[in-house]
Amino acid sequence: MSLDNRRLGSKGDTAFANMDKISCELFVMTYGALVTQLIKDLKDIDEVNSKLEEMGYSIGCRLIDEFLSKSQTRNCKNFHTTCEMIAKVGLKMFLGVEGNIRKSTPTNNVANTSSFSTSMTTSVSTSNLGTATPSSTSDDISNCYILEIPNNPLNDFVELPSQFKNKLIYSNILCGVIRGALEMVQLKVNCKFTTCKLKDDDCDRIQIELEEILEDVFEDDD
Amino acid sequence: MSLDNRRLGSKGDTAFANMDKISCELFVMTYGALVTQLIKDLKDIDEVNSKLEEMGYSIGCRLIDEFLSKSQTRNCKNFHTTCEMIAKVGLKMFLGVEGNIRKSTPTNNVANTSSFSTSMTTSVSTSNLGTATPSSTSDDISNCYILEIPNNPLNDFVELPSQFKNKLIYSNILCGVIRGALEMVQLKVNCKFTTCKLKDDDCDRIQIELEEILEDVFEDDD
Repeated sequence: MSLDNRRLGSKGDTAFANMDKISCELFVMTYGALVTQLIKDLKDIDEVNSKLEEMGYSIGCRLIDEFLSKSQTRNCKNFHTTCEMIAKVGLKMFLGVEGNIRKSTPTNNVANTSSFSTSMTTSVSTSNLGTATPSSTSDDISNCYILEIPNNPLNDFVELPSQFKNKLIYSNILCGVIRGALEMVQLKVNCKFTTCKLKDDDCDRIQIELEEILEDVFEDDD
Repeated sequence: MSLDNRRLGSKGDTAFANMDKISCELFVMTYGALVTQLIKDLKDIDEVNSKLEEMGYSIGCRLIDEFLSKSQTRNCKNFHTTCEMIAKVGLKMFLGVEGNIRKSTPTNNVANTSSFSTSMTTSVSTSNLGTATPSSTSDDISNCYILEIPNNPLNDFVELPSQFKNKLIYSNILCGVIRGALEMVQLKVNCKFTTCKLKDDDCDRIQIELEEILEDVFEDDD
């Protein structure tokens, strides 16, 4: 593990220690009740997947404030660091587990996003977030990463009936949370599960692809 | 605080320390998404209240195993001790907060429940649970208690729109959890919110009334 990763891991541990916490089991069961309810209501599994993502998006838009204030995070110099921050600090803070990231191949054409600095500041004021300025042009930096979550707690105690196994994206709320949180720091991303333990894969993996760096909109009161 | 309460409080702290935990904020927001979804789907607020209780019941029936194994709880000698256990150990283990209990006036007629011993053992085998044997006849023991939850985390960040304020029992899932968990140890109870901070009361209060001590059903394999 690199020094940077160890530093981020320790930051994640500290942030998690400072959070109000509840039993993981209660959360997992409540989430299970939510998914079951959506299946009953919506019937169509694609709609359930979309609904979970949409719910996650709203949650992510709100959770980013807590993340910024509790993680003491400063600017991320590129998309790689942003994804490392999600894996080592964000996941730890909110789910109590760590993830890993690795470079992936983008599936969409993305313009003008190779280098930037996302202002993940400790301020929660929107006007301080997301100023995009060039900072790195390393060839190593990609616009697309895979976030591996070896121990996704949402999977605990869950076994999918065979008719849902290859259709339901059970933890899709997480894709929404990441998308919503990053949009609040001016990063429009596309997130999707590529593998999932509940489908008998070895690990949960979410592909996070940067689509666009959004422009800050400043409103002038004068 | 009595010596018994301090002992139970310390038991709750230890059990909570041994639990896998996640961020309270993520849980609270996910729960909020669940309630919002139910309101959209069911329209009728009474149905939403019932649905939340019903979901809680299923969760409680499963959480009792975790409670018994992690809390190292032995027999509760009467209903008062059972309610203390919920307030000081159960709430702490799963929600990270403590409650208080006080005697209340039953609203239903309840037969033959004045004294018992619920086997809250560390075993999770159903056959070891809930043998009712007389153990106390103190006049101090009631069949009805109020569980006060001064800091119910489910209320965090929630403000009810005025049209829901006096109708929606926002945390009704908790009544279901208590009812489900106690039914697994042979205690049939009726639970209902009597006050709620979201309705501008000073504190959340749940009335827990013992309705019946269920008979153990032993299945003979021979």
